[in-house]
Amino acid sequence: MNKDGSEPMRSDLDKRTVTLIDSIAKQIRSNIESGKPPTIKLPVRSLANVTYDEAKGYLEIGTAHKVRTLTVNTARSFAQTLRLMATSRAMVESNDFATKREAYYISKNWGDCRFDEQAESDAIMDDIEALASMHGLSREQLRFYPESHGGSIAGRLIVIDQQPATGESIEIDCANLGSGAYSIPHSVEHLSFRTDARFVLAIETGGMFQRLNNHRFWETANCIIVEMGGVPTRATRRFIRLLSDKRDLPVYCFVDCDPYGFANIYRTLKVGSGNAAHINRFFCVPRARFLGVTPQDIIDFGLEDATHPLAKSDVKRAQDALRNDPFIKAHPEWIAAIKQLLQMEVRAEQQALAKWGLNYVIDEYLPRKLADTNSFLP
Amino acid sequence: MNKDGSEPMRSDLDKRTVTLIDSIAKQIRSNIESGKPPTIKLPVRSLANVTYDEAKGYLEIGTAHKVRTLTVNTARSFAQTLRLMATSRAMVESNDFATKREAYYISKNWGDCRFDEQAESDAIMDDIEALASMHGLSREQLRFYPESHGGSIAGRLIVIDQQPATGESIEIDCANLGSGAYSIPHSVEHLSFRTDARFVLAIETGGMFQRLNNHRFWETANCIIVEMGGVPTRATRRFIRLLSDKRDLPVYCFVDCDPYGFANIYRTLKVGSGNAAHINRFFCVPRARFLGVTPQDIIDFGLEDATHPLAKSDVKRAQDALRNDPFIKAHPEWIAAIKQLLQMEVRAEQQALAKWGLNYVIDEYLPRKLADTNSFLP
Repeated sequence: MNKDGSEPMRSDLDKRTVTLIDSIAKQIRSNIESGKPPTIKLPVRSLANVTYDEAKGYLEIGTAHKVRTLTVNTARSFAQTLRLMATSRAMVESNDFATKREAYYISKNWGDCRFDEQAESDAIMDDIEALASMHGLSREQLRFYPESHGGSIAGRLIVIDQQPATGESIEIDCANLGSGAYSIPHSVEHLSFRTDARFVLAIETGGMFQRLNNHRFWETANCIIVEMGGVPTRATRRFIRLLSDKRDLPVYCFVDCDPYGFANIYRTLKVGSGNAAHINRFFCVPRARFLGVTPQDIIDFGLEDATHPLAKSDVKRAQDALRNDPFIKAHPEWIAAIKQLLQMEVRAEQQALAKWGLNYVIDEYLPRKLADTNSFLP
Repeated sequence: MNKDGSEPMRSDLDKRTVTLIDSIAKQIRSNIESGKPPTIKLPVRSLANVTYDEAKGYLEIGTAHKVRTLTVNTARSFAQTLRLMATSRAMVESNDFATKREAYYISKNWGDCRFDEQAESDAIMDDIEALASMHGLSREQLRFYPESHGGSIAGRLIVIDQQPATGESIEIDCANLGSGAYSIPHSVEHLSFRTDARFVLAIETGGMFQRLNNHRFWETANCIIVEMGGVPTRATRRFIRLLSDKRDLPVYCFVDCDPYGFANIYRTLKVGSGNAAHINRFFCVPRARFLGVTPQDIIDFGLEDATHPLAKSDVKRAQDALRNDPFIKAHPEWIAAIKQLLQMEVRAEQQALAKWGLNYVIDEYLPRKLADTNSFLP
């Protein structure tokens, strides 16, 4: 603890966060002192300001900006922006955090500039987040944490965390949690990792994760398994990204063979999402590759009679992806795979492999796929 | 491993499961050998066959039965019932499991008695589960695991699990997972516990769980915290129930002050749900009590200006609970609380306490409430 009773700031990132907030505050003050109306320059967060650069590997926010100037009409939102930034600064100093929902409630004591609805506080937080992202800082570094975490981890990984009170290091051995798993916290920036695993396997469903965990697939395959539970949350994506970056590990994605699995779950993990382009640089996993289930797997592994017809919504999602998704459009392999699925008119779940026996996935499917990682979809 | 290569059966419960399945099979065989049409007697699973007994503390299935007799019309569902029971027996012997979804896919190799849709396999599994429940066995003991687990645990608890391969005991210290947590597995029957905690605190939202975990509330309050994430899953409810029974611990529930929090989250945790009455005896937590947030808390803790108006759906849910919910109707305290909420015409979330500062919940609200557990709603 510091002499004034506050917790010490823990990292360079914390210092950069405070420096950024201070510099904005100083600039506003100097505006006022020189008789100019105070302004804040914020990135435009609309889809029109989003691009996909294959070399960078994620959907990225462009250079368009909007300027919020203090006027009679903007007095309230201007004050709210500054108070949220001040809240963020205070949380960095006290080593605390708030969910978006809590941030909304904190404002209930702000008198006339209180938020009436969470949509208001969310919009202003998104602005601040977009601004911070231009300086390499994510919302978590501003100490606004997501409501949801959700991902679980098992396998050959030691997570290194810190005791919040003492800063003392804690090691969590994800190979020693029995049939349970390690539940990813809401913020993961402070974690580090030790592992001898060869890759990370990101799994769509809890049922498949439990199967691979109970049979200790990660031991024989020498890997780390992650339960995404559908489209991975921010915390899960960031965890996989940090793990992949820090330990130089490839990430293989194992999801259902349907347009939702391709264009929502996998695409979001790999390159992020279009309506949150200002944060993708932190949350995407450019090294992710698609293990399966692919349309070709349905043929190669004899799953035809364990498929389901494509629903109208599946067809629509697939056509949308072919027409509008910059990531899909940049990869001929994905275009071909989605066209193949549309032509087959069926989808297959990862559990469909159980048709050949509950542990066919462990004994046959995954070993055959992992023997040829070069064939994975990009 | 046994001499024949199979895994050993692990528990008395496993033996009872096999005995039950064998006895049903023998009875069918003896029907056939004596020239009678084979029959299976199954409990009726409709709401009309559900009662609430306050002394027992859960919504319970009644004594009504239906008899499934093998005829030309029932040949397919009769065969499916037997094959699912045979699958269950094989999984007990090989110490494996299947999700409901996997059980459906397994049938794809059953020829003419394959399931066309999962709704078919689910209905038959529910029948078998209801039958097993009359013998004190849950679906997990039949080795059909739920798709979802979801709950996380932190605090003064050591979970004792077993290495699936060796049976060797593993201890997971839930006080030593840093900012992360222990993710509850899909089946928890084999777990045991060591703890010196005074109580279990079951929390609705992930955000509040993370706050209490990061600030190690469980250390100062000497408790175990559970993240339910809305209505708790089967695995989460069963985990809390086993922990409460085996370690003789009271369970306090901390959820939003709204009809969904009372009549869905809390009611399901405590007494189970009406449409799954055959399983409530395993999954309900009769010792649970409602810490808050109560309608009176809105007044006592000055949260009036951090509330939201009741939506139409809230009012409807509250009125339904007063009229139709056997648990609510049995408790005058709950009737009064729900009427008070309807009269106040507002709801409040647990995060609303952030109005008084992010850690007001830790420094003020929870200590004041926990000083008077006798006042908790039943």
